[in-house]
Amino acid sequence: MDTHLHHEHPEDHLKSSDMLRDIVIGMSDGLTVPFALAAGLSGAVSSSNIIVIAGIAEICAGSIAMGLGGYLAGKTEQDHYSSEVKREYDEVEHLRHREIEETKEFFANIGLSPALQEQATEEIARDKDRWVDFMMKYELGLEKPDPKRATKSALNIGLSYIAGGIIPLSPYFFIDNSTEGLKISVIATLICLFVFGYFKSKITGINPWTGAIRVMLIGALAAAAAFGVAKLFEG
Amino acid sequence: MDTHLHHEHPEDHLKSSDMLRDIVIGMSDGLTVPFALAAGLSGAVSSSNIIVIAGIAEICAGSIAMGLGGYLAGKTEQDHYSSEVKREYDEVEHLRHREIEETKEFFANIGLSPALQEQATEEIARDKDRWVDFMMKYELGLEKPDPKRATKSALNIGLSYIAGGIIPLSPYFFIDNSTEGLKISVIATLICLFVFGYFKSKITGINPWTGAIRVMLIGALAAAAAFGVAKLFEG
Repeated sequence: MDTHLHHEHPEDHLKSSDMLRDIVIGMSDGLTVPFALAAGLSGAVSSSNIIVIAGIAEICAGSIAMGLGGYLAGKTEQDHYSSEVKREYDEVEHLRHREIEETKEFFANIGLSPALQEQATEEIARDKDRWVDFMMKYELGLEKPDPKRATKSALNIGLSYIAGGIIPLSPYFFIDNSTEGLKISVIATLICLFVFGYFKSKITGINPWTGAIRVMLIGALAAAAAFGVAKLFEG
Repeated sequence: MDTHLHHEHPEDHLKSSDMLRDIVIGMSDGLTVPFALAAGLSGAVSSSNIIVIAGIAEICAGSIAMGLGGYLAGKTEQDHYSSEVKREYDEVEHLRHREIEETKEFFANIGLSPALQEQATEEIARDKDRWVDFMMKYELGLEKPDPKRATKSALNIGLSYIAGGIIPLSPYFFIDNSTEGLKISVIATLICLFVFGYFKSKITGINPWTGAIRVMLIGALAAAAAFGVAKLFEG
């Protein structure tokens, strides 16, 4: 493992992991939900035709819902950040005493002596912009969001969902008997979930083999449950 | 708006917003995806029976995939945190000089004078546990995760998905003609999406009416797209 990983330029690190996180979000559900839906329907109908239609409707719905959901999350983050910045400027202006106390508290919490708390707070409070910046980051824990983030996020999540969803569905395009289609769909999707889980775990720094098996099992469990429940309701 | 909201005890604030975030994640997709799937299938099949089966399979699959996905995300966060803590202790022990530089850099970035940077770093570096804690929080931006978080997250997301998904599907239980079912499903779900969007926006601090309309439009768009695409593939 690379010990220097977290000493890279933090901005770069953040952005690339934002994109990877989006792809992981989209592909994770894209591989799992259409797969489980198709498996569930295979337990209830014998012709692939209805499964293809339902699957395409699901991929369409899922990618739009998740993609636009990501867009909304990004926009909300931006709006939230702007409104908090405004509030902090307001407080620094009109509730200066309280903000001074909060800044001192921060330095007390990280373990500085009372004398240093006093001095450090005094230095920070000299520059209003810097002070607000500091409060945003360390009191509220908010990072300034990238303004293009919402749009990028929507595209990354939506396209990853589609890419993931096509895999479990594709066998049903070519095989008319749903049980036969399911067999190939299960094999293809479990392999993809394993590979996806492996790389996802590598990115997040956990054991890739454990992660690969975990992700594959979730997909298998979801598909088995959907299959069982659909059979139950059909019967 | 309550100006004091972010001055609550930060731990409490974090935990409640974690739970709310889970509910929002689950219900948001639960209301949208099964809704769009049912709408899409209503464009392709005339009997509600297949829609009910597909819808139940989808809710089953979606709640498991998203719930266990949330579990996995929580577990990964914990593993990641533990491995980073170990690394920081290691670095504080064996690369003390570099960690001192990084701590100074932090104080330089927030705007302290060189003299204070020096003193503050010296004070923090006296207590190893505190120092590692500080580095975790402010160099790496990692909060200590709640050990029960993964399980709670899975339940919150999964159950919210089911609660959301039952709403668009329920009309099809009682109405055999899918087009008639769709009409009621559209009305009921759009109202729920509006109400859900309103409260979701209130929590995140953006204009609740704008938010309500945004969330409702996403649902409507996903359903319309699924309906259109399913009709296309059926025809």
